[in-house]
Amino acid sequence: MAMVKARAITGIPEWLPEVKRVEQLWMDKIRTVYEKYGYLPVETSAIELLDVLRAKGEIDKEIYVVKKLHAGSKENFGLHYDLTVPLARYVAQNQGQLTFPFRRYQMQKIWRGERPQKGRYREFYQCDIDVVDNEKLGLYFDFEVLYAGQEAMKMLGIPDFVIGVSNRKIYEGYLEGLGIAETTQVLRIIDKMDKIGTEGVSRLLRDDVGLDLAVIEKSLLPASVTSKDMSFVEQFAAFGISTEKTEAGIAELKEVMLAVENAGDANVMVDLSFVRGFDYYTGTIFEGKFVEDIGLGSICSGGRYENLTSRFTKRNLPGVGFSIGLSRIFGGMLDRGLISELASPHIDALILRTDADDLPSVVKLASTLRNRGFRVETYAYHDKMSKQFKYASKKKVPYIWIASRDNLNEFEVKNMNTGAQALADPATWEMA
Amino acid sequence: MAMVKARAITGIPEWLPEVKRVEQLWMDKIRTVYEKYGYLPVETSAIELLDVLRAKGEIDKEIYVVKKLHAGSKENFGLHYDLTVPLARYVAQNQGQLTFPFRRYQMQKIWRGERPQKGRYREFYQCDIDVVDNEKLGLYFDFEVLYAGQEAMKMLGIPDFVIGVSNRKIYEGYLEGLGIAETTQVLRIIDKMDKIGTEGVSRLLRDDVGLDLAVIEKSLLPASVTSKDMSFVEQFAAFGISTEKTEAGIAELKEVMLAVENAGDANVMVDLSFVRGFDYYTGTIFEGKFVEDIGLGSICSGGRYENLTSRFTKRNLPGVGFSIGLSRIFGGMLDRGLISELASPHIDALILRTDADDLPSVVKLASTLRNRGFRVETYAYHDKMSKQFKYASKKKVPYIWIASRDNLNEFEVKNMNTGAQALADPATWEMA
Repeated sequence: MAMVKARAITGIPEWLPEVKRVEQLWMDKIRTVYEKYGYLPVETSAIELLDVLRAKGEIDKEIYVVKKLHAGSKENFGLHYDLTVPLARYVAQNQGQLTFPFRRYQMQKIWRGERPQKGRYREFYQCDIDVVDNEKLGLYFDFEVLYAGQEAMKMLGIPDFVIGVSNRKIYEGYLEGLGIAETTQVLRIIDKMDKIGTEGVSRLLRDDVGLDLAVIEKSLLPASVTSKDMSFVEQFAAFGISTEKTEAGIAELKEVMLAVENAGDANVMVDLSFVRGFDYYTGTIFEGKFVEDIGLGSICSGGRYENLTSRFTKRNLPGVGFSIGLSRIFGGMLDRGLISELASPHIDALILRTDADDLPSVVKLASTLRNRGFRVETYAYHDKMSKQFKYASKKKVPYIWIASRDNLNEFEVKNMNTGAQALADPATWEMA
Repeated sequence: MAMVKARAITGIPEWLPEVKRVEQLWMDKIRTVYEKYGYLPVETSAIELLDVLRAKGEIDKEIYVVKKLHAGSKENFGLHYDLTVPLARYVAQNQGQLTFPFRRYQMQKIWRGERPQKGRYREFYQCDIDVVDNEKLGLYFDFEVLYAGQEAMKMLGIPDFVIGVSNRKIYEGYLEGLGIAETTQVLRIIDKMDKIGTEGVSRLLRDDVGLDLAVIEKSLLPASVTSKDMSFVEQFAAFGISTEKTEAGIAELKEVMLAVENAGDANVMVDLSFVRGFDYYTGTIFEGKFVEDIGLGSICSGGRYENLTSRFTKRNLPGVGFSIGLSRIFGGMLDRGLISELASPHIDALILRTDADDLPSVVKLASTLRNRGFRVETYAYHDKMSKQFKYASKKKVPYIWIASRDNLNEFEVKNMNTGAQALADPATWEMA
């Protein structure tokens, strides 16, 4: 048989085992936080019917289509490219069996047919937390998903980050109040502030939208508003524009920030500059990044979408959600050598083999220790001691068990950090 | 916009959140056991290059091919249909960076383009544990993956199960010793014993292989050998056939069973009837099922394969592995109402809302409790008490927190089982 070159698809992160172990610890931490808020896990199938996936339109070119190899079959499947469309489908499909408000989290891989490039994967994890309610959705949940999401991120021990919070109604209402008709177009341009700066934005507003200078200057004022407390209310009021919409947006944002303040200890800041021009969000919006830019851009985002399930059901099921870009954060930090947990050992002890006939005693010892919860590896061969010790240090094992000189059924423990060695009873032994 | 019917692909399990939660607990239990044996997690990409997937041949028709929707691209991907081919590819690809013996577990979804039917899924989980070593692989590992695998299954609290262990060399050598040339064909027929019984097997051996009655009778003798201890050695010896191959097989099986005996407490039994005729296994083989047949058939299996990576590398990297059919077991037990953990609550406490202005105090209380590790849900609306209590019992919440009559910042806890209610301090409260 011909040889096949062993290679994976480019643009898909595939970690070495020691690294995957840490990614898994991260996922456990996120999950634990989400569950502390009463959220339940949902897992949807990776493949969906194509018409379901395309119900939102627009992103066709990124979809991976799935077919049987020897087809003739009429199957028309695709891999999901986010966890929001599957959520909408799942909620619409199971609405009779779900308890509303429906709190769920979902941590799954998604697939996008992008050209692979640094930091942009074709198969990667997202960790989403969302609430969907029946007919109306309390503003309380805008706070809850934001706060749970940022708490999950804090647990990861990543660099200092901040999550900007805003409400689309504020900027939209402000532009309307300025007499601007093309608010969507203007917001899309303002959304580029991060990349092209005030000058770039101003130029586009002049050239593409045809706004005059005085209007452009005024239109950019809210983009300067940031606050860790309620002072954004006064800052915005100073611009002298108040409409029904801006009032609604300000009131909503105040309520979210009131809850954040009382919950305490949040990496959250009001930032009106940030408007998420392209999104389907209708009210509160979130977007997080590292305070010190390490080149990863947006690391989490979310917001409220009143029309989540509108393509699937006539019932009104509004939602609000928060999504952590796990693979992007993890992969980015790994590339930059910032994953500290890699140093921690994955086993507590290694049992050495000192005799050709020691299998029974070694197996018994390992069982006893594992039954007590220790992570124990047994050296598999009756190799030279020097080779076994070399393996132990390669694995960074903190403790070694080794049969005593006279008795295969009696063991000593060696602390690999201190070098101390003494007889030990596996039924009662504890790590120092 | 036109409505799209919200529906999932048939033949893919997709649980309600309460059910998914339990499946996740099961996966955690399996993982914890695998990690106690020092195994590291590996996750490979779900999509692989088609030529890699097809390197083993034969199962083409089950492969799902993956392409971009608007192609023109030459991408040739497929979804993995097991975790063994990806393991072989991964080990061959990363051999320079892995520590051998390479102990890994892998718990991922796999996809098979099967016609959907009860208990046979198109997208499902398998939980594999394998060891691959460099050039030679110690027999100790046949014991280790078997024992770790069966321990993981025991943690799930599933019905009584037994894992049959055998060694392909024994039956193969025995048939050769009987003078039978078509051993592979005969073993494939004997492998059907479970389904068509001794008579069916005898008929096939006569009609398809052309064996005469005396040989058929002798050829079936080892299929009756089962033992929980070393007595299989004597039982087999009584048939009076011993070749180099049978001796090798018996010696290997003895060593595995010696370790099992000393580790203790295993749901493992020697069963020579079971030969896995169709597989690529070369020595030790495993296959588990429930003692009382609930119609699920094989629930776990595995064995040793000396030629794991032969299509990908010239280096010899033999392996031995054990695979738990998680979705099959979980889905089968769910269908039969056998998942007991579904009754346990997913939150510890619910905080009620008694006042339109109680958001700050409620949010503070929730933070305090969650920081102490409790799973706490906050009721989102200022609804009537009767409605809030109804929600609490629907969610089976064991404890309710409710503001005291006079002070929004003081709370009482109600034990929903006993009905007892008293003031409580969130900083020190414990569940009864």
